[in-house]
Amino acid sequence: MSEVTEFLTVYSKDIKKAINENLSSIVPNELQEASIYLTDAGGKMIRPVLTLLVTEGVEGDKEGSLKSAASIELIHTFSLIHDDIMDDDDVRRGVPAVHKVWGDGLAILSGDTLFSKAFELIINSEKDPIQNNKSLATVADACVQICEGQALDISFEGRYDVTEEEYLEMIFKKTGALIAAATKVGAIMGGASDDVSEAMYEYGKLIGLAFQIQDDYLDVISDEESLGKPIGSDIAKGKMTLMAVKALNEADEKDSETLLKILKNDNSSKEDIDVAIEIYEKYGSIQYAHDIALANVNQAKELLDILPETEAKHKLSLVAEYVLERHT
Amino acid sequence: MSEVTEFLTVYSKDIKKAINENLSSIVPNELQEASIYLTDAGGKMIRPVLTLLVTEGVEGDKEGSLKSAASIELIHTFSLIHDDIMDDDDVRRGVPAVHKVWGDGLAILSGDTLFSKAFELIINSEKDPIQNNKSLATVADACVQICEGQALDISFEGRYDVTEEEYLEMIFKKTGALIAAATKVGAIMGGASDDVSEAMYEYGKLIGLAFQIQDDYLDVISDEESLGKPIGSDIAKGKMTLMAVKALNEADEKDSETLLKILKNDNSSKEDIDVAIEIYEKYGSIQYAHDIALANVNQAKELLDILPETEAKHKLSLVAEYVLERHT
Repeated sequence: MSEVTEFLTVYSKDIKKAINENLSSIVPNELQEASIYLTDAGGKMIRPVLTLLVTEGVEGDKEGSLKSAASIELIHTFSLIHDDIMDDDDVRRGVPAVHKVWGDGLAILSGDTLFSKAFELIINSEKDPIQNNKSLATVADACVQICEGQALDISFEGRYDVTEEEYLEMIFKKTGALIAAATKVGAIMGGASDDVSEAMYEYGKLIGLAFQIQDDYLDVISDEESLGKPIGSDIAKGKMTLMAVKALNEADEKDSETLLKILKNDNSSKEDIDVAIEIYEKYGSIQYAHDIALANVNQAKELLDILPETEAKHKLSLVAEYVLERHT
Repeated sequence: MSEVTEFLTVYSKDIKKAINENLSSIVPNELQEASIYLTDAGGKMIRPVLTLLVTEGVEGDKEGSLKSAASIELIHTFSLIHDDIMDDDDVRRGVPAVHKVWGDGLAILSGDTLFSKAFELIINSEKDPIQNNKSLATVADACVQICEGQALDISFEGRYDVTEEEYLEMIFKKTGALIAAATKVGAIMGGASDDVSEAMYEYGKLIGLAFQIQDDYLDVISDEESLGKPIGSDIAKGKMTLMAVKALNEADEKDSETLLKILKNDNSSKEDIDVAIEIYEKYGSIQYAHDIALANVNQAKELLDILPETEAKHKLSLVAEYVLERHT
């Protein structure tokens, strides 16, 4: 177990406990079970752990951020439940998705319940009302962005002229915004200044972007065993990634047409996928994606300079690096 | 036009404007359109108007409550959109339901977006952070209860042993909780004391319960033309109402069996429905429902005694009575 997975395990215990306490009053039983199910199924809890680490990093009291951290995880879980309905995904965290177990109706409701409970948690944070309000504003903004990001992602389906800017906006909203909120809330609840809170927001945003780009990158560069799914599944699904956007933009007419044909084909063979990856390579798309992810992580680490030297700062730096290490 | 519908029309204009302003920044366009659609389609906006009236009733500044009032309406709209998906209802406010126009995915998302925007609105209320926090706590609680109420309602399907207590809990959560939150938030934002805020919460809760019970009552007592749907549609659908619960509880074995058979039958004839209504009448269920709705309204009006004599207090009294007047 790496140092990161070790402290993720340790910190996530308290968060899980806070979540379970918060959700234990939900009635009827079925709604409670559906709401608590994905938290019980596991998950690394990177977002809420980041909240706690940033609170420690600004020399605040970690205990005082526990409810806010739990809140961030509930928002994340809510969005997973609703996304799985929209995308009709069957499996989440190694178990059947909520809507597959309880049906769409109760899945929608359990997402809504988690959303409501998330706000309750921050409101009841026993913190100064000004800190609470700042945290709530940060989280509510992130929630709007998550919805917009998912809507943008849906709107990209069947569109192959997505620009790099549009793509980055989508992944920022869909993935980066909540991680940025997680780290900013950690700063706010830890009593940090606005400057430090903003720096922590940027740190979260950058590792969120790196996280998503790395996901795209691993899909073509990893091996099937460590990825847990076939190589090039994004290509097979015709999903826009930074690499696809870049290659479609840079390739000559012939390569561009070939790539488009593969992306549009619902039944691409392994050979087709290899051809697409070759085109990515030819135009430097894979290296480009990796470079951007790496640059984001390095920039994120630099932002940590604003923090005093603590064990938490060291851990925040490790989390930034961990984003690039996964499955490789 | 009655006095009530007249001031509902006047007050709702500002609320609609505040909502449109708040939703105008949503991207992409499709998400914005789906999110704003039901507000454009109409709706009496009783809930947010109550918020404004209570603020005036506690001699607060109505303008300062506008964002909170808009927030309450957004929560209501969010719950309508998601409920229509769950119940697969086709029409809402005289237009096709959101999920019928944009599909389930975008309907789920637009509900989630309205939910997020609702919290944003209160957070940005430019009020004292303590007032904001109290309002947010009230609204977040109501949101949890709305979800629980809908889950309870779903769990009642196919159950004919629902107790009066269970039924009242369900309609309080599904309908009463948000109206109670609307009136309490109006008090909080108007700077009222905790005592007055609690009294306004009770006022809202009572008219919310009366509203739902009256809906059930009108379904059997009204005429088809003013109801806009066939008489006894709740009976045809086998839906639990206060009258059904009461009659099943009080009726002798024979009548109870007859009623159960009709409620369980998906193809009840007009004659069956008449028989069910006769059984309701025989055991005083219809009068019982009406008496409870009336008692709630009278109790709600008494709670207004805590307020100073103002035009708003008069209007709040009229709204309480209006709950019983609809469609009769």
